[in-house]
Amino acid sequence: MTEPLRLGIAGLGTVGIGVVKIIRRHAALLEARTGRPVMISAVSARDAGKDRGVSLTDYAWETDPVALAVRDDVDVFVELMGGHEGAAKAATEAALSAGKDVVTANKALLAIHGQPLAEQAERAGRVIRFEAAVAGGIPVIKSLTEGLAGNEITRVMGVMNGTCNFILTQMQATGQGYNALFEECGRLGYLEADPNLDVGGIDAGHKLALLASIAFGTRPAFEDVQLEGIQRIQLADINAAADMGYRIKLLGVAQRTARGLEQRMSPCLVPANSPLGQLEGGTNMVVIEGDSIEQVVLRGPGAGEGPTASAVMGDVLDLARGLRIATFGQPAATLQEVPAAQTGLPAPFYLRMGLLDKPGALAKVATVLGDAGVSIDRMRQYGHSEPTAPVLIVTHKCTRAALDAALDGLAATDVVDGTPVALRIEEV
Amino acid sequence: MTEPLRLGIAGLGTVGIGVVKIIRRHAALLEARTGRPVMISAVSARDAGKDRGVSLTDYAWETDPVALAVRDDVDVFVELMGGHEGAAKAATEAALSAGKDVVTANKALLAIHGQPLAEQAERAGRVIRFEAAVAGGIPVIKSLTEGLAGNEITRVMGVMNGTCNFILTQMQATGQGYNALFEECGRLGYLEADPNLDVGGIDAGHKLALLASIAFGTRPAFEDVQLEGIQRIQLADINAAADMGYRIKLLGVAQRTARGLEQRMSPCLVPANSPLGQLEGGTNMVVIEGDSIEQVVLRGPGAGEGPTASAVMGDVLDLARGLRIATFGQPAATLQEVPAAQTGLPAPFYLRMGLLDKPGALAKVATVLGDAGVSIDRMRQYGHSEPTAPVLIVTHKCTRAALDAALDGLAATDVVDGTPVALRIEEV
Repeated sequence: MTEPLRLGIAGLGTVGIGVVKIIRRHAALLEARTGRPVMISAVSARDAGKDRGVSLTDYAWETDPVALAVRDDVDVFVELMGGHEGAAKAATEAALSAGKDVVTANKALLAIHGQPLAEQAERAGRVIRFEAAVAGGIPVIKSLTEGLAGNEITRVMGVMNGTCNFILTQMQATGQGYNALFEECGRLGYLEADPNLDVGGIDAGHKLALLASIAFGTRPAFEDVQLEGIQRIQLADINAAADMGYRIKLLGVAQRTARGLEQRMSPCLVPANSPLGQLEGGTNMVVIEGDSIEQVVLRGPGAGEGPTASAVMGDVLDLARGLRIATFGQPAATLQEVPAAQTGLPAPFYLRMGLLDKPGALAKVATVLGDAGVSIDRMRQYGHSEPTAPVLIVTHKCTRAALDAALDGLAATDVVDGTPVALRIEEV
Repeated sequence: MTEPLRLGIAGLGTVGIGVVKIIRRHAALLEARTGRPVMISAVSARDAGKDRGVSLTDYAWETDPVALAVRDDVDVFVELMGGHEGAAKAATEAALSAGKDVVTANKALLAIHGQPLAEQAERAGRVIRFEAAVAGGIPVIKSLTEGLAGNEITRVMGVMNGTCNFILTQMQATGQGYNALFEECGRLGYLEADPNLDVGGIDAGHKLALLASIAFGTRPAFEDVQLEGIQRIQLADINAAADMGYRIKLLGVAQRTARGLEQRMSPCLVPANSPLGQLEGGTNMVVIEGDSIEQVVLRGPGAGEGPTASAVMGDVLDLARGLRIATFGQPAATLQEVPAAQTGLPAPFYLRMGLLDKPGALAKVATVLGDAGVSIDRMRQYGHSEPTAPVLIVTHKCTRAALDAALDGLAATDVVDGTPVALRIEEV
């Protein structure tokens, strides 16, 4: 096949412009690699007049992305608008109906509507590709769906929100608190319009739902991701974790267990000397474990013009080369609907609480934990000037259910000030 | 396509048996992912009677791998014998002539004969796949050829010989010398029959030549790899490097420069806190840098039954799914023949030498370096009881040619005992 592959690109923000730049800069290289020219027929964005630093005059302009998606001179609809409803969804559906393949960076759209969209794509004999939706430039979707396809995947983990990892590593590096760094992220433009997408773990949760689907052959089920943000992490936690040889990361973990599919996105402690523990700043990392591969770790930039455009182009070039597999790695009808595991596999937990200065307070805590079946591996009580004494506990492995029972028990005592911070320690 | 994909597997060592086990264990999973059964028609190995811990009675047995390669009931010839001449080469050629695709773990065969084999495959309309030949289970060939195909690759680096990395990290961890650990590797079965393949950098050099070809669109040219083994590394080097914040790794680096294609496989210093510096034991790591992606780091097991079989199966399953691209990522006829860069890009170097106890010795060394255009960044002279004083020097960036001139100059003085150790410090 030597006819050009013709793209329609909807959304000319950072990523869209990055894609345009690659296609303009590397026309010869891309043709050498795929055997055919890769070209842009048309683009769409809200503001046609804006200077985007690259010439767009060679391309037809559509105001309406749906009109772009169905153009006769478009083979692949590249959706870079974002948002899980509205124009992105309508244009993706229109593109599939019109027999176009779709390449998208839209994690929310696929995490929430992935199943019906994949089914629609298959009915039309088309595919949806979404490498750019997960972990930016890291070719993790391809590695998991194709390179590691001979494995039964046992666990997938990832640090996939650069803003959260920036805040957590800067807390440790600079000694600033969460609020100060959150505000700094706002000034630097690192936060989504709704910051809860970042610090609440929603953005990373969308990515985890997509990884879980392709890892385990299950329907994408974002609604089943157990979400916990980083807003409650204090400098005291960062420092206590470091003292004990850990780092705190907003970590996504997906695992298929006898009790169902476990999908957690929450702040966890990981060993400081592990690849995940060593990951600093905005870089992303995905850890894939399988029955044959043991463990593969992929690390790279999780956002930005170049890296995300690189991922989009990886998908586009696969299509140019005629490489096509089902959206989630196997036919949508065969994706399993697996119940969500109500509780994670047992793990050690980190607890931090303020203990009121009363006789026997520590003994009460130990008794409550013991009664709930939670045994203590390590405990530290720090000197203090306030009326409450900071106490850190690392438990032996226990279930989250047992831990929650213990937390309820602690709340019923009169010795614990406020709600303890409880973080899972993930074995990596 | 729902007919089975039928394999003929030549070579039933660790990797071959690993492949058989995956196909037996995961028949349903593999069929769900590819849409068709993946089965083994026939196998071959030297000793038919040997107990290999898995039943082979379902498969036809061929004593001659060439006979296996051309069987009518074989679609894909899986070559796991190794060796760059003899049976592996003859059987691969026979398979291509008979219209079979080839999946191989044979780095030497492709690094040396890759160009004519790729041409033969294309004439036959077939492909050769070789994920397992480079960095074991890490899906690096796929990441580079497909996932990152939108990038102009600027540099590829890798620690790709687990035995060498085991020796180097154990020297630091245990304080044992090179010879003791070399012998331990022999006892543990970590060494190739010809140990120079490992410690001389040849095995890793084969892998680098394959990476360079797909990264830069050039003909595989193992003969142009500048090879240097780890045999001269002493504990003193390991410790001195650590003191200065570095680790010593057998590092492959491929870079396309204005002066030609640079391919180096040699012991280098890398920052201790970089992903490469933190890599311990037998694990492999490949670092890929491109104009859009910035840097991606892939880490995983570089050898072993499961991981290598996982890589073989990745290739097999691509073929089952109909995913086919040219052997080295673009048509063999378009691969460029690029001259080898005669000297690497400038870099800082680490030098260790024994200085004879003569007045003005250090001044002579400094003068010789200066005359050769090599300026000194840091120098340390250690206290000593022997007649020679250990001296460590870190240079500012200079070319290897300038450094070699300085080394010649030092040999011509009467103050340096023996040949200095000179290692490049790679910026990673």
